[in-house]
Parts: sequence; C-alpha cells; structure tokens
Amino acid sequence: MTFVSTQQVRFAHVDPAGIVFYPRYFEMLNAAVEDYFETAIGVSFAEMHRARRLGVPTVKLEVDFRTPSRLGERLDFALAVDQVGRSSAHLRCTVRCGEVERFVARVVLVCMDLDASASVPWPEDLRPRVDAQARVAT
Amino acid sequence: MTFVSTQQVRFAHVDPAGIVFYPRYFEMLNAAVEDYFETAIGVSFAEMHRARRLGVPTVKLEVDFRTPSRLGERLDFALAVDQVGRSSAHLRCTVRCGEVERFVARVVLVCMDLDASASVPWPEDLRPRVDAQARVAT
Amino acid sequence: MTFVSTQQVRFAHVDPAGIVFYPRYFEMLNAAVEDYFETAIGVSFAEMHRARRLGVPTVKLEVDFRTPSRLGERLDFALAVDQVGRSSAHLRCTVRCGEVERFVARVVLVCMDLDASASVPWPEDLRPRVDAQARVAT
Amino acid sequence: MTFVSTQQVRFAHVDPAGIVFYPRYFEMLNAAVEDYFETAIGVSFAEMHRARRLGVPTVKLEVDFRTPSRLGERLDFALAVDQVGRSSAHLRCTVRCGEVERFVARVVLVCMDLDASASVPWPEDLRPRVDAQARVAT
Repeated sequence: MTFVSTQQVRFAHVDPAGIVFYPRYFEMLNAAVEDYFETAIGVSFAEMHRARRLGVPTVKLEVDFRTPSRLGERLDFALAVDQVGRSSAHLRCTVRCGEVERFVARVVLVCMDLDASASVPWPEDLRPRVDAQARVAT
Repeated sequence: MTFVSTQQVRFAHVDPAGIVFYPRYFEMLNAAVEDYFETAIGVSFAEMHRARRLGVPTVKLEVDFRTPSRLGERLDFALAVDQVGRSSAHLRCTVRCGEVERFVARVVLVCMDLDASASVPWPEDLRPRVDAQARVAT
Repeated sequence: MTFVSTQQVRFAHVDPAGIVFYPRYFEMLNAAVEDYFETAIGVSFAEMHRARRLGVPTVKLEVDFRTPSRLGERLDFALAVDQVGRSSAHLRCTVRCGEVERFVARVVLVCMDLDASASVPWPEDLRPRVDAQARVAT
Repeated sequence: MTFVSTQQVRFAHVDPAGIVFYPRYFEMLNAAVEDYFETAIGVSFAEMHRARRLGVPTVKLEVDFRTPSRLGERLDFALAVDQVGRSSAHLRCTVRCGEVERFVARVVLVCMDLDASASVPWPEDLRPRVDAQARVAT
C-alpha cells in the first residue's frame, strides 16, 4: 500500500515551453512529503516545525524526468520509505499522470534540530512510525 | 453564493519569519482563479490556454493584508465578479482562515489573445457566463 | 536621485503565454526592496532578520501592470519612499525596460518584531535614514 | 577555466528554518545555466526560446546538498560541460560560498524543438560551441 498525494498542474508551474518547469516539481514533491508525514507518519509539518522545532531538509536527490507534464493535468505522487537510518530516511517517489510515468525521484531526508541547526536521531515517538512505513514499502 | 477555493499553506509558501511570503499568496490566488474559471465559469485554464489560445492576465491589483498566515493553515479563497467590461473582469477575493480575514484582493483581469498578444472581447460563449457570475455577486 | 535595482527576466519568471507571471514580479520587487534597504537605508535584510530579528512585511499593495515583460529583458526597479509613519513606510516602485513602463507598485511596509510577531516603531538608528530617503524622494 | 555565475540568496529563497528551500536552488541553478548559455556557449535563452524555438529541458538530475545556505550569502555557481551527446549535454555545477561547498549538481539537458515537443540534435552552429566547452572542462 503506497501513499499517494494527488496534485494538479497549475498555471504557476508551467514554463514558456508549456511544460512544468522542474523546480516547480520539487515544490509539488515537497507538498507530497508534507502530506506523507501528516497522513502516513502521523505528524504534520506544522507540528514538527512550529511546536517541536524539527525539520527534514533534503540532503540528496536523484531524479529521472521521463515525460513532460502540462497545465491542468492531475499528477499522482506515490511515496514510500526505502530505508531508514539513525537520523535519515530514503524516500522514493514515482509520479504518474494516469498510467504514464512522469518522473521518479529518490530523496534522502535528514531529521534536523532547527534551533541547533544540526541533524538529530529520529525522536522516539516518530522512529517506529518511519520504520513501519519502510516495512510497508518492502 | 460565493465560490470558495480552499488551499493549505505549504512549507513552500512560508518565509524565514514563519509567515506566508506575499508573492506566494498570489500563486495561491491564481490557483483560486483557475478553480473559479473551471467551476463557476465552466472553462478550464488548460482549455483556454492550450486549445483556445486565450489568457487572462492581471492588469490591476489592490491588496490589503490584514493578518499573517502560518504553515499548515487552510485558507478559504472566496471569489466573486464585481463588474464585467468588454474584455475585462473585476474580481474580488476575500481570504479567510476560519472566521479570521487574512487578506482582501481586488483584481482586474483582461481577456487576451495569446497569439496576437492583444486584449480581445470576451468570446461569445464565455461572456454570458462571466455576466451571470457578476449578477450572482450583487 | 532615485534608487534603481536592475534585474533580468529569467526563465523561472515567465509563464506559458511567454510573459512574466505576476507573482514573479513580486519576488523581483522584494529583491529590489532588499537592495534598497542594503544600499539606500544602509542595513541588509540578513542583518535585520538574522541579527536584529526585525522584518518588514508588506501590508498593502497597489499595482498597475502596463505592458508585459519577456524572457531576457532587463528591468529597472526605481524605488522611493513616499511617506514614513511611526512603524510604516510607503514605497513607490516604477519598473521600466528602457523607456517603457512595465508596472507601477505602491507598497506599504511595516516594521515588525519577528519574535513578538507585532509591529514596532522604526528603531532609532534606522528612523532617520528612512526619513532621509523620504526627503530625497520629494 | 570554469564559468561562474554569482547569485545572492534572497528572502524569497529562504524557508521557515532560515535556510535555502531546495526548489529555490534549482531556480538559481537554472539562472546559472541561462548565464552559461549566453556567455560561454554564446546564445541567450531569449534567442533560443523566442527566435529559434529551442529549449533545453532537464531530463536527469543528481544533487548532493552539503551545507545549508542563508539569507544574504553570495553563492558561486561554477558550471562545466562533462560530456556532449547528439542532443544532450551533461553539466556539472559546484556551488560554493567562499571556499565552502554548498551543493554539487549533475544535470543532463536535452535540446528540444519546442513546436514539435521532441528532442533534436544540437543545431550545427551550437554543436561546436558546446563541444568546445566540454574540451575546456577536461
């Protein structure tokens, strides 16, 4: 059971060539990661950032763009955890419009203490939930 | 009956002060206008831009920002047509989080022929629908 | 003597119609305001936000878009202070490409204590400098 | 001799954690690629997109983010061509603030006919210039 966040290609996402400008894909991907944390892991970005002062910045990114996306299309961002480290998580995101693959991204996130500006181990309450997602994905 | 498009404040919208960076509000407002055209007027931006080669660029904007918005909040963009001209439409957008007003925007759009880069009268099939929205709003 | 910040229209600024998407104009305008604070007022946004915990959010905005801008054009953002209040400043920004006016924006900024999330009077060292800019503009 | 495009971290680039939001890095990277084409290859994005109807969309991206960047910093985007294919170019971009590496990106671009929405071989006048850049980089 993979988590899916569906997002529409907005006018703001599209470049002069009529296709999604790739930095906008990462805004969409980040929104999908927000939805994933809120729904699958069970903690919202608002709670993490504002109440707990934890962030999950991206430290590594690999993306293959297969086919372009156009204004008005609805894209499915399917997210799964591939691997969990002490303070990191490896996510895989496959983006499709209907059956057609648009791009595949591998993302490594790190759990960061925002006030110390340093990576920290996943908190005890979140670690088992991230692990559970990794088991689901295999 | 006012049209409402609800959008969530995403991490991508928020500035170092922890509040929505105002240019991001206009990306959200533009998405609300897209939803408005698709749902209330009955023509999608994709159909307008790609098939009919019509755009609706903003030519005038007046905004009062009342209270800041924060990560994770859900904002209701209530849209109405105040006035319709030969090739223009005056929209009013009131944005609230629950009962609290966040900002009010008055926007003048103009119907533009994308290939000629010139304003054109509203097409015959769209004009009555934009007019109908203006009547609804009064 | 008006302050001018020159910025190039980037691929990231341009929409499917081949013209600058207006929310991108406000990213450019905000960068011009940053340059203005650093150069004309004499305090950088980095110093204000990071060291002094002061922000200058926009509370009111009025914009007339005259003619569209296209990829690669160099835009001159001419900035002046029209009026200074206890904790506010009214800026006027005229944007031109060569001699052709692209848009005119009137912006009201408010000085904000970022930790208290409340407006505060201009600090004593900055107030005379903002005032001086207002005198220059008349 | 590597080409360098210097860009300042703007308020618009920075997230609630006070560091550059990674999709903004790609807007900056794309601007660096624009500068690279204009200066090193000798053809501007405006000429390519508007006059010649050629684009260079990104089809593959690999990025390692080493250390975060903050408001006001000046980043040097050093760009080089690693490899040239019939219709592709492999770029390497190393981004530094002073001596400190911020991120390294490997980007594969493809030359695209915008009207046909299909990849095309590098045009005869551009190919030798892209090749020359690849030789310079070795």
